[in-house]
Amino acid sequence: MPMTRSRSTFEFAISPRLSEEGRGDWLVETIRSAIQSGKLRPGQSLPSTRELTKGLRLARGTIISAIERLKDEGYLKSIPGSKTFVANVLPEKFLSRSLPPVAVHSGHSKPVALSEYGKRLRPVRYYAQPRTIAFRVNLPALDLFPIDLWTKMAAKKWRGASTSLLLGGEPFGYLPLRTSLSSYLRTSRSIICDPEQVLITSGIQEALDLSTRILVSAGDSVLMEDPGYQVAFAGFEAAGARIVSLSVDNEGAVPPTKAGLRARLMYITPGHQFPTGATMSYRRRMQILRYAHTEGTCIFEDDYDSEFRFEGSPLPALHGLDSKAQVIFAGSFNKTLFPSLRLGYMVVPHGLVDAFKMCKSISCRHHPWGDQAILHAFIEEGHYVRHLRRMRKVYSERLQLLADEVRKHLEGALELLPVEAGMQTVGWLRTGQNPEDIAALALEENVDVIPLSRYCYRRQVPPGLQIGFGGVDGKSILQGVQILAKLIS
Amino acid sequence: MPMTRSRSTFEFAISPRLSEEGRGDWLVETIRSAIQSGKLRPGQSLPSTRELTKGLRLARGTIISAIERLKDEGYLKSIPGSKTFVANVLPEKFLSRSLPPVAVHSGHSKPVALSEYGKRLRPVRYYAQPRTIAFRVNLPALDLFPIDLWTKMAAKKWRGASTSLLLGGEPFGYLPLRTSLSSYLRTSRSIICDPEQVLITSGIQEALDLSTRILVSAGDSVLMEDPGYQVAFAGFEAAGARIVSLSVDNEGAVPPTKAGLRARLMYITPGHQFPTGATMSYRRRMQILRYAHTEGTCIFEDDYDSEFRFEGSPLPALHGLDSKAQVIFAGSFNKTLFPSLRLGYMVVPHGLVDAFKMCKSISCRHHPWGDQAILHAFIEEGHYVRHLRRMRKVYSERLQLLADEVRKHLEGALELLPVEAGMQTVGWLRTGQNPEDIAALALEENVDVIPLSRYCYRRQVPPGLQIGFGGVDGKSILQGVQILAKLIS
Repeated sequence: MPMTRSRSTFEFAISPRLSEEGRGDWLVETIRSAIQSGKLRPGQSLPSTRELTKGLRLARGTIISAIERLKDEGYLKSIPGSKTFVANVLPEKFLSRSLPPVAVHSGHSKPVALSEYGKRLRPVRYYAQPRTIAFRVNLPALDLFPIDLWTKMAAKKWRGASTSLLLGGEPFGYLPLRTSLSSYLRTSRSIICDPEQVLITSGIQEALDLSTRILVSAGDSVLMEDPGYQVAFAGFEAAGARIVSLSVDNEGAVPPTKAGLRARLMYITPGHQFPTGATMSYRRRMQILRYAHTEGTCIFEDDYDSEFRFEGSPLPALHGLDSKAQVIFAGSFNKTLFPSLRLGYMVVPHGLVDAFKMCKSISCRHHPWGDQAILHAFIEEGHYVRHLRRMRKVYSERLQLLADEVRKHLEGALELLPVEAGMQTVGWLRTGQNPEDIAALALEENVDVIPLSRYCYRRQVPPGLQIGFGGVDGKSILQGVQILAKLIS
Repeated sequence: MPMTRSRSTFEFAISPRLSEEGRGDWLVETIRSAIQSGKLRPGQSLPSTRELTKGLRLARGTIISAIERLKDEGYLKSIPGSKTFVANVLPEKFLSRSLPPVAVHSGHSKPVALSEYGKRLRPVRYYAQPRTIAFRVNLPALDLFPIDLWTKMAAKKWRGASTSLLLGGEPFGYLPLRTSLSSYLRTSRSIICDPEQVLITSGIQEALDLSTRILVSAGDSVLMEDPGYQVAFAGFEAAGARIVSLSVDNEGAVPPTKAGLRARLMYITPGHQFPTGATMSYRRRMQILRYAHTEGTCIFEDDYDSEFRFEGSPLPALHGLDSKAQVIFAGSFNKTLFPSLRLGYMVVPHGLVDAFKMCKSISCRHHPWGDQAILHAFIEEGHYVRHLRRMRKVYSERLQLLADEVRKHLEGALELLPVEAGMQTVGWLRTGQNPEDIAALALEENVDVIPLSRYCYRRQVPPGLQIGFGGVDGKSILQGVQILAKLIS
């Protein structure tokens, strides 16, 4: 991608000078090679003569005459009164000359051997890009995010940034934010924890990755909801874990009946099972905890969307019911605020704090400070809760509209699950059609629905589609349902 | 840490209601337990009666009388016209009552079993906190960072944020920034790469961690400069690698003489060896590359501070000399801008792009978007290069002052290495004193110098101290040298 007349914002580096060559010849050769090899690109401007004189410690005359020679050869151009730049059309002879040996890359080199972990990695499918008209899952209503307020907080935080804010610090993150979160989790999720246990992450993904590294060796068993979050499967596979899948019913994930598996980690979404939408019953929660305590299994509680509960008070987290400190709790702001923020948190049992600290240090030191400070102000000034309340209302209305439209246009063909929270739901397909066919046809019309079977590892689910409504406005819901109604019958 | 009269910014969660209990009794018991167990803390305010009525779906009268009972018991207080809050001094009988069973945590639970990786983790020592008067290494001059300019860029980026900026995207990061970097690296470091090869990281630490995961299995050999960056040693140890240490002379790291080791990764700092300050000679670079090509070893080139080169043009990176695409290049903005930014980049050989993409996806999806967009504007508007130029001048002057002061006060006792770049140098101790003793005594006087031996893994170095000057102003340099002069003789 040659840029036209781009400014040379950066310095110009030249290979070590060989003393036996004439200085002018050397400079001509160096610049010519840089152009031929692509280090300097068509349209890119050269540093000024003054800068070259200083940087290369050559006489001004030497530089000027070298540039003149390259202009004569057609490699450089200059506009009077402006800078010198690399010609957009290079001399034809360039094409027939061989490139200087050192700069030649083999381009796509033969694959380098990977580690055992590297070999087990497999591609993770996120969601369709670019955006579709309707029904993308895990997508918040970004146009309703109070960006002006966020900008104000950001400007305020940066403007008043102390050198200690610029310096950063502890692997677990910005202490004021961790303190706010420990207070938030106490009242809103019934989780009792010290700020010392709260680790700021870039989201649930990182929380799970750190937990897997610290707790699971290759060959160890892990328990995983099936159907479940596809990236968790990929992470466990890369770790070389033996994945034992848990079935899911309308009370949530079902613990194994047989004892003695001694799995190292159990991944579950008790608040709102992903993707089926089931909320784990109290009875099931106690059953899961008993199982984990007996087996010595750590539980990874992915609490990805319980902030968006439409009715009643939020359910207490599994973490709050655990008497043996075996639950790792993970939450995220990537869905409650916006996905590119990449900010989340996890609550780590006291006994694991040191291991997480060391692992976080080695993996990336700590999360960037700026966004943490902005988010802290956003929470403390009450904007976060106000935004949640507003979004909860919006999402609840959107779900209602979706349900009404589906009833109107798809009665008997698509049966919508009455979810209590979140930004997506499930529609059970009653027509005998293949969900993959529907999804492919819908995508052609720019509508994004995900066959539930894509979240299955070993188990089977009835034919169903995951349907997002959080980031889909009223008009698009109407449009989207009409498109689905054409395809499902 | 009880907060006094803190606002209850968040919702109040209550355990599943048992139908056989009287509703009022249940509410009293629930709130009392929440207070006793610490879920509600002294001074914390309760949601309003209206909110409780709505959230719990209880009659208003039931709620009011429950609150009155708890006030009578001394658990709650209220100020007329204001909210109800948890009493700061709780009823004494609370202390003698046992806590409700479910909420009791064992506190510091017995340690959970760790993975093989988890067991190999060890604490990483960063630098002394809080800040000292002088000589902390890897510390930029934070008071000279143009925070107003950064604030302006941040406000501009956030204010105009499109929904696609809020959405995020590719694991490798924000494409405009990667494109700028690929152009920067071409002209400034002689590195030819596509934006597709540029992965945005949180710094060199993350770049090394990803590389280690993808390339090194437990039991594999890695080559590592010794003395060298202590966190790299810790990362390789946690990975279970067999660390083969490379000696360092005044031309940089020395490749092994024997062939056949077939190490998977070689970590080096050719631009400015950390911590000895040696710049790798051209001859040594070619020798290292030949070794790596013969052995099939990937090179991790840590280019942590070559932007701060005081004289002449920047040296081309080892990456630019590599004809076989076996060099992974890593740079960072955490020292050129500010450490809490946590932003860096790596250039990945074409053959490894897919593996890095999958690994980054699983480990944390992608780097936060906001700071990437701000940095992109900062670079494109020329502020980055201007800041580098200014800092280069400042650091060069500080080094000069340090050298003058050391000559004046420590002649013959401490011999300063004439470094060409960076924010720190080495002083060789000529007095026969133990560097650890000097460092301990200096720290008591708030002066921070690091014995070089702390960076040694298996090898020995002559007695020396690493001395930072980047973040130390003139006055502090004078003070710091005077303190050292008292201790070194």
